[in-house]
Amino acid sequence: MPSHTLQFRVRYSETDQMQTFYNARVLEWFEVGRTELIRAMGIPYVEWETRGIFLPLIEARIFFRGRARYDDLLEMTVTLKAEGRARLLFDNRIVQADGSGPVADGYTIHPMVSMETGRPVRTPDWVIELLNKE
Amino acid sequence: MPSHTLQFRVRYSETDQMQTFYNARVLEWFEVGRTELIRAMGIPYVEWETRGIFLPLIEARIFFRGRARYDDLLEMTVTLKAEGRARLLFDNRIVQADGSGPVADGYTIHPMVSMETGRPVRTPDWVIELLNKE
Amino acid sequence: MPSHTLQFRVRYSETDQMQTFYNARVLEWFEVGRTELIRAMGIPYVEWETRGIFLPLIEARIFFRGRARYDDLLEMTVTLKAEGRARLLFDNRIVQADGSGPVADGYTIHPMVSMETGRPVRTPDWVIELLNKE
Amino acid sequence: MPSHTLQFRVRYSETDQMQTFYNARVLEWFEVGRTELIRAMGIPYVEWETRGIFLPLIEARIFFRGRARYDDLLEMTVTLKAEGRARLLFDNRIVQADGSGPVADGYTIHPMVSMETGRPVRTPDWVIELLNKE
Repeated sequence: MPSHTLQFRVRYSETDQMQTFYNARVLEWFEVGRTELIRAMGIPYVEWETRGIFLPLIEARIFFRGRARYDDLLEMTVTLKAEGRARLLFDNRIVQADGSGPVADGYTIHPMVSMETGRPVRTPDWVIELLNKE
Repeated sequence: MPSHTLQFRVRYSETDQMQTFYNARVLEWFEVGRTELIRAMGIPYVEWETRGIFLPLIEARIFFRGRARYDDLLEMTVTLKAEGRARLLFDNRIVQADGSGPVADGYTIHPMVSMETGRPVRTPDWVIELLNKE
Repeated sequence: MPSHTLQFRVRYSETDQMQTFYNARVLEWFEVGRTELIRAMGIPYVEWETRGIFLPLIEARIFFRGRARYDDLLEMTVTLKAEGRARLLFDNRIVQADGSGPVADGYTIHPMVSMETGRPVRTPDWVIELLNKE
Repeated sequence: MPSHTLQFRVRYSETDQMQTFYNARVLEWFEVGRTELIRAMGIPYVEWETRGIFLPLIEARIFFRGRARYDDLLEMTVTLKAEGRARLLFDNRIVQADGSGPVADGYTIHPMVSMETGRPVRTPDWVIELLNKE
């Protein structure tokens, strides 16, 4: 299964009055993780859209495990799994990069949808190849 | 179970390049729903914090059901349920206010945590009263 | 000059670790103000885009005057002025609704741009009418 | 004058329905620029707050120069200037990293405020040293 790890810092704009990151921001981080995993697999997501496939989000689940403050360096690992013949599941784990503990984990589920028809399609061959490469 | 319904419009800032709302924004809307349900129950959340209780988020799950564009009028219904003796679950359903279909639904789960100790506490009596009032 | 006043509450998601609203959120509030002023003038902005005109932002200036906390009720007044023959200027003033003081003010400047050509156009007659009505 | 250049990509969450970045996001990018310039100067901003100084924003001005799409690689240069004896001005310029044109520029102005008293203070000696180092 394709997997990718990246590091990033908590922005000031991502904190809230509890002095930790605001919960919705995790979904933005998950999306950054998907972007970078897909790039690392060889075909950036912008190119997926050019090829007529997009990946809307139909379900997200997040478990909040620990605090993270402004400027904390976090490490996120994203793993991609096929969900049946027409869906992708991205699994995300975010921890403090200094090893001091987990921050949040969860997954997002995406059908592959045709830009042209707006309808779900079966996994195209070039996506199956990407999934099997690693 | 306490329940509350409110309406709001999709802000331009909440759209993304797919011409619908950006997914993370749903968690901001859920939070607006919690705030207004808790106010309608009689004691605003600001006052909960003054009384030494806060409600961090430990789990969120969202199902994306349909599109919503800039300026669409949406209707959200929030229902509060006790989860055992120390947790609250807020269930949220967002639909197009004109009846044209569902937009997103899901839930968030919150322990009741003491401001003083930072540790979960059992549901205080005044919260049990609020839960049973309606 | 067309003018409109509305009230709104600070969302939890809009706070940061300094316990006040995060600065970028003011631009989202200004945009909510523009939307509601334009609706009050008689033709919602969605309809402007249908008529082939959109209003990109080319300049924004903000003065931060005071704090606002989660759930504070704020009042915003937006006034629209023509800037020469091809630009609109929206002036925004945000204060605490309880009269306890100013929060932020500033302006945004927008050319009128044709959806078709992507180029600025002179103020259409129907916009001039809207501007002179009040 | 201390200056720093960094690169970053436009997140999907930062786009809006006009297919470019949403305007308020520029203020989040400016803040990322301040954070990285201050780190490069030798004392991260987290440490400034520990030393009792924070930098609230009192004025921001932004000029929007061009579009930037999802995943575009942008380059931001931040330059720090003293504004009199008690204020700092951060000047920001964001361009497409591939040289295809400007995206946005502008400045933010910050008094130095004592954490203890909540009041502006004169520039501390250790800040003057940082400003003169480069």
